[in-house]
Amino acid sequence: MLNNSLIHPEEARKMIRKNQWNGPTAGMCNGYTQANLVILPKDLAFEFLLFCQRNPKSCPVLDVTEPGCSVPALAAPSADLRSDLPSYRIYRNGILTDEVQDIHSYWTDDMTGFLIGCSFSFEQALMQNKIPVRHIEENRNVPMYKTSISCTKAGRFEGPMVVSMRPIPEKDVVRAVQVTSRFPSVHGAPVHIGDPRSIGIESIDTPDFGDAVTIKEGEVPVFWACGVTPQAVVMNVKPKLVITHSPGHMFITDWTDEEFGVL
Amino acid sequence: MLNNSLIHPEEARKMIRKNQWNGPTAGMCNGYTQANLVILPKDLAFEFLLFCQRNPKSCPVLDVTEPGCSVPALAAPSADLRSDLPSYRIYRNGILTDEVQDIHSYWTDDMTGFLIGCSFSFEQALMQNKIPVRHIEENRNVPMYKTSISCTKAGRFEGPMVVSMRPIPEKDVVRAVQVTSRFPSVHGAPVHIGDPRSIGIESIDTPDFGDAVTIKEGEVPVFWACGVTPQAVVMNVKPKLVITHSPGHMFITDWTDEEFGVL
Repeated sequence: MLNNSLIHPEEARKMIRKNQWNGPTAGMCNGYTQANLVILPKDLAFEFLLFCQRNPKSCPVLDVTEPGCSVPALAAPSADLRSDLPSYRIYRNGILTDEVQDIHSYWTDDMTGFLIGCSFSFEQALMQNKIPVRHIEENRNVPMYKTSISCTKAGRFEGPMVVSMRPIPEKDVVRAVQVTSRFPSVHGAPVHIGDPRSIGIESIDTPDFGDAVTIKEGEVPVFWACGVTPQAVVMNVKPKLVITHSPGHMFITDWTDEEFGVL
Repeated sequence: MLNNSLIHPEEARKMIRKNQWNGPTAGMCNGYTQANLVILPKDLAFEFLLFCQRNPKSCPVLDVTEPGCSVPALAAPSADLRSDLPSYRIYRNGILTDEVQDIHSYWTDDMTGFLIGCSFSFEQALMQNKIPVRHIEENRNVPMYKTSISCTKAGRFEGPMVVSMRPIPEKDVVRAVQVTSRFPSVHGAPVHIGDPRSIGIESIDTPDFGDAVTIKEGEVPVFWACGVTPQAVVMNVKPKLVITHSPGHMFITDWTDEEFGVL
C-alpha cells in the first residue's frame, strides 16, 4: 500500500479525482500546503476578495481562479477544483443541501474559486519545533470559538472572527509566536494569548465548533484566526449557491509550507 | 515654520486639502507610511484586485475603498482620497490629460480607490540600518527598469515587472535582504541581486524611468519590485478614466511603517 504522507500532490489529486480516496487529507503529502475552498458566483467575488484583503489573518488568500475557470493556475496548474477534493459541501441560500465527491454538475461559467490558507501548515511548524499540538495528540478536531472581535466589513460581508485554540506550555509561548509569525499566508501569528474572556469567549470547555481539548497545568490558551471565519461570513449573506470543501477534506496544492515562510 | 517631518498625518492631510502644501511628500510625517494611489472604475476593480493578489511583491495592497466611497477606512478614516494628495494625474484611455490638486469634479459613484505600498517605507528601514540609499544621497529619482520577469496575468491586466535598483555595498547585502523582508506590505525583500542581464536589463546606466545613480567599486546592484508596475499594467488596458497620484506626491496614511513589520 502507498504511504499517503509521502506521495506528491499531483499523485494524491489523481487518486482523489478517480475516487480512489475520499477521506480527510490530514497527513497526506507531508510538507505540501493544503487549502480551504470557497466557490462563489462572480457577482460576489469582488466583495469577498475585498473582505479577505481587509481580514488577512482570518482569510489568507492563496489563489483565486478567474470566473468560469476551475484551474488554480498558481496553486496547482494541473488540478481541477471540480474533482480534486475528496468531498464538497453544497449550500443553497446558506443551507447545506448536499455533500458530494465531484461538482462538475454544479459548476457554471460565472463561478470563482478561492483557496484560503489552512492551519495544518502552521501546526507542522509548531510540531517541528517540538511544541505540542493538543487536538492532534488527543485525536480530536481543533476547538473553535466565535469571538467579540469584529472582522472589517466589506460590502455585504461581515461578522465575528472565529478563532482556533491550542494550549501551549508557558515556556513555549514565545517560540510559538515566532514560528507561526513566519507564515502569514496560513493565518500567521496568534491573535490572542491568555484569558479567553478578553476576546469574548465565556467558556473554554464548550467550543462553538470542533471538540474541547485538555488544558494542562502550566499551559496557556493561545488563539489563532481560523479559516471557519470566511465560511461563516459567506453563509450570513445566504448566496443562492456556494460550494466549499467538506471539513478536513482539503485541496492539496503544489506549494510547500516552507515556500510561505517570510524569512 | 512647521517642520513637515514631525507633523502628524492628519495635520499634513489638512494642509494638503486646503492647498497649503502641493509639493512632494518625501520626508513628511517621519515614520508614517505613504502609499501609491490608483483609482479605477468598478468594472475593473475585481480584476485589478486579483492582479494585486497574484503579484504581491509588485502590488502590495494596503487599502481598497468600497465603490463610490472616497474614504480609506483602514488607512486613514478621517481622510478623503479626492482632496488629500498634493497632486493627481488624470488619464483618459491611457493618455495623461491633466494634473490637478483636487479630483472632486472627476469623482463618480462607481470609482474604487486602491492604496498600494511604496518604497519610501523600506528605504527608511535600510537607512536606519546604516545601509546607504544612493538616489537619496545623490538627490535623484530612484532608477527603475522594465524586466524580463512577467507578472502573473489576471483578466485584462498583464505586463512586465518594473523594478527599482539600489547599489548596496557587498558587506551589507545580507542585511539589506533581512531588513526589507520584514516589510512584505511595502514591496518586501528584493527580487534580484547581482547581474542585471539575468532579469533582462541590458544597460544599468539607462533606466526606463527615473535617474541613473552611481554604482561604486564593491557595490552590488540590488533590485526590488516597484509600484510603477501596477500603473504600467493599468495603462496597458487603456481604461476610459484612471486617476493616480503624481509621482512623489503620495497619500500619507495613519499607519506607521513599523506596524507592517512581520516580526
